[in-house]
Amino acid sequence: MRITIDAMGGDNAPEAVVKGAEKAVAATDNLQITLFGDEEKIKPYLSDSRQIDIVHTDEVITADDEPVRAVKNKKNAPLVLMAKEVKENRADACISAGNTGALMRSGLFVVGRIRGIDRPALSPTLPTNDGKGFLLLDVGANVDAKPHNLVQYAIMGSVYTEKVRAVSNPAVGLLNIGTEDGKGNDLTRKAFNQLQNAPINFIGNVEARDLLSGVADVVVTDGFSGNIALKTIEGTAMTVLSLLKQTFKSSLKTKLAASMVQNDLKGLKSQMDYSEYGGAGLFGLASPVIKAHGSSDSRAFFNAIQQAVNMVENNVSDTIKTTVESIEWDKGE
Amino acid sequence: MRITIDAMGGDNAPEAVVKGAEKAVAATDNLQITLFGDEEKIKPYLSDSRQIDIVHTDEVITADDEPVRAVKNKKNAPLVLMAKEVKENRADACISAGNTGALMRSGLFVVGRIRGIDRPALSPTLPTNDGKGFLLLDVGANVDAKPHNLVQYAIMGSVYTEKVRAVSNPAVGLLNIGTEDGKGNDLTRKAFNQLQNAPINFIGNVEARDLLSGVADVVVTDGFSGNIALKTIEGTAMTVLSLLKQTFKSSLKTKLAASMVQNDLKGLKSQMDYSEYGGAGLFGLASPVIKAHGSSDSRAFFNAIQQAVNMVENNVSDTIKTTVESIEWDKGE
Repeated sequence: MRITIDAMGGDNAPEAVVKGAEKAVAATDNLQITLFGDEEKIKPYLSDSRQIDIVHTDEVITADDEPVRAVKNKKNAPLVLMAKEVKENRADACISAGNTGALMRSGLFVVGRIRGIDRPALSPTLPTNDGKGFLLLDVGANVDAKPHNLVQYAIMGSVYTEKVRAVSNPAVGLLNIGTEDGKGNDLTRKAFNQLQNAPINFIGNVEARDLLSGVADVVVTDGFSGNIALKTIEGTAMTVLSLLKQTFKSSLKTKLAASMVQNDLKGLKSQMDYSEYGGAGLFGLASPVIKAHGSSDSRAFFNAIQQAVNMVENNVSDTIKTTVESIEWDKGE
Repeated sequence: MRITIDAMGGDNAPEAVVKGAEKAVAATDNLQITLFGDEEKIKPYLSDSRQIDIVHTDEVITADDEPVRAVKNKKNAPLVLMAKEVKENRADACISAGNTGALMRSGLFVVGRIRGIDRPALSPTLPTNDGKGFLLLDVGANVDAKPHNLVQYAIMGSVYTEKVRAVSNPAVGLLNIGTEDGKGNDLTRKAFNQLQNAPINFIGNVEARDLLSGVADVVVTDGFSGNIALKTIEGTAMTVLSLLKQTFKSSLKTKLAASMVQNDLKGLKSQMDYSEYGGAGLFGLASPVIKAHGSSDSRAFFNAIQQAVNMVENNVSDTIKTTVESIEWDKGE
């Protein structure tokens, strides 16, 4: 199996990318990795090049680049080149921690969609109270979703969760503003009806308040609302932890208490660290494309590579394709 | 001034309602309060009835009642009767901690809209890092918003924030999936353009990640996304605090540390307690209608009453009406 990686994407690139790749090839049989980026910057970190090769390129897409223009004009940027390798069947999956919009664009227009899937979905796995985690999709690949898009997300999310996360018959919820049937806006009311007839374990509406309690294994929503939910989780967790930090710094007594629970609080932080589950898959593409978090360290890159390996080994894209083909879609909504 | 209150709504009714009302009349000149509900249950808590009277009714709308049917069929429920007092000019504002949907229905169809406002907006003030708080609207009164609805929310939110919260020239942000101009779905892209021409201090798009850092004084969004954001904030804060609790209970050492910071952590919790800012206003109605949180204690009811008093004294509804009338609306979008 061969996986291509943008070695220049993310806050800790290229060091964290290289170290993550080295861990991954050591832990996985028959894995070849190709890193795309500035060879001079990558090479110093690479200690064993037997299963890892470098393809040099000077061009780079930064976080500030406008995605559509960037992918069009910077054809030699790592996240475009790595996708081309996948498209032309020289690699099985690709990973980048760089510009999310550019990666989505590159995935959609270079790797290409699964036939029958109308819109890909950006799909992170988020932590829950009980440690199991849940898959949220879409968090922003497609901001104006139609009801049947949400049904396709539900199918893609179910296949991934069953095959890669080994959850049998995963429970799928529809993110909504109340749990009762018939709740919601025009989109969710229509999607609810379609989801009831889809080949998934649909458990009905779920509320944002219950997401982190593990109310469902897969939660589907349009990319706008999903993005709001994801970023609200991040922002709120950050705010509570920073208030906690302030509290601990407020007096000698609280500082002493903080020193006593320091290690335990690290445990709490790692419980909320969703890089343990890998990156966010861009589901619905012909081959796995993974967006690793911008702040990924070597362990997060390792997890994202393992995730890509699992997706390839378990034929996630093919299973999605077969399932979608087996359904008669009524896209008049 | 006279304010009517549903004495049976909320987890701690009627005791917390009565105690909150007593505090409010003690703190406010010329305030009369009328409580609607079961007189036998209310009376035992009322120690001084000079400024507080009770109107007895047996009927009650519960949290489980379907709002539309409930308001139609239970015409003697407290939250319908209190709204009627306002509609018929025997009271200036009304408050309930009961069924949110029924209160919105009662506000819209009994109290009635301000002429020119197409949709009311449910508008809580939420806590921020810096202690200033921000107003989020709409969080669910209107789930399928049009661009001009968001402009009206921005105006209503600005008027309220300037007059009641005494923030001059409040900064208004549009909740979106990125901060750059042109970002978002069809609704936010159109609303962005209209907001630029509205008589408010529009600062552009804001991201959900930055809400609790006080990125804006007023944040406008459609009722679906706003509800997702609000409930995600609640759910995430609850989850982090419960994980923290678990952490503190994990060993003798952590238990000792917990006992040392117990009081300080209460401070943290109260920093995140948004009942300090009153209830959620249902903006756009002819007179103030306030939704107090279901878990309101007497202090929260006191704050909601103060908020209603401030809205009446500062002519919030009239100012919204005048501002909306001064604009030429193009609702073709």
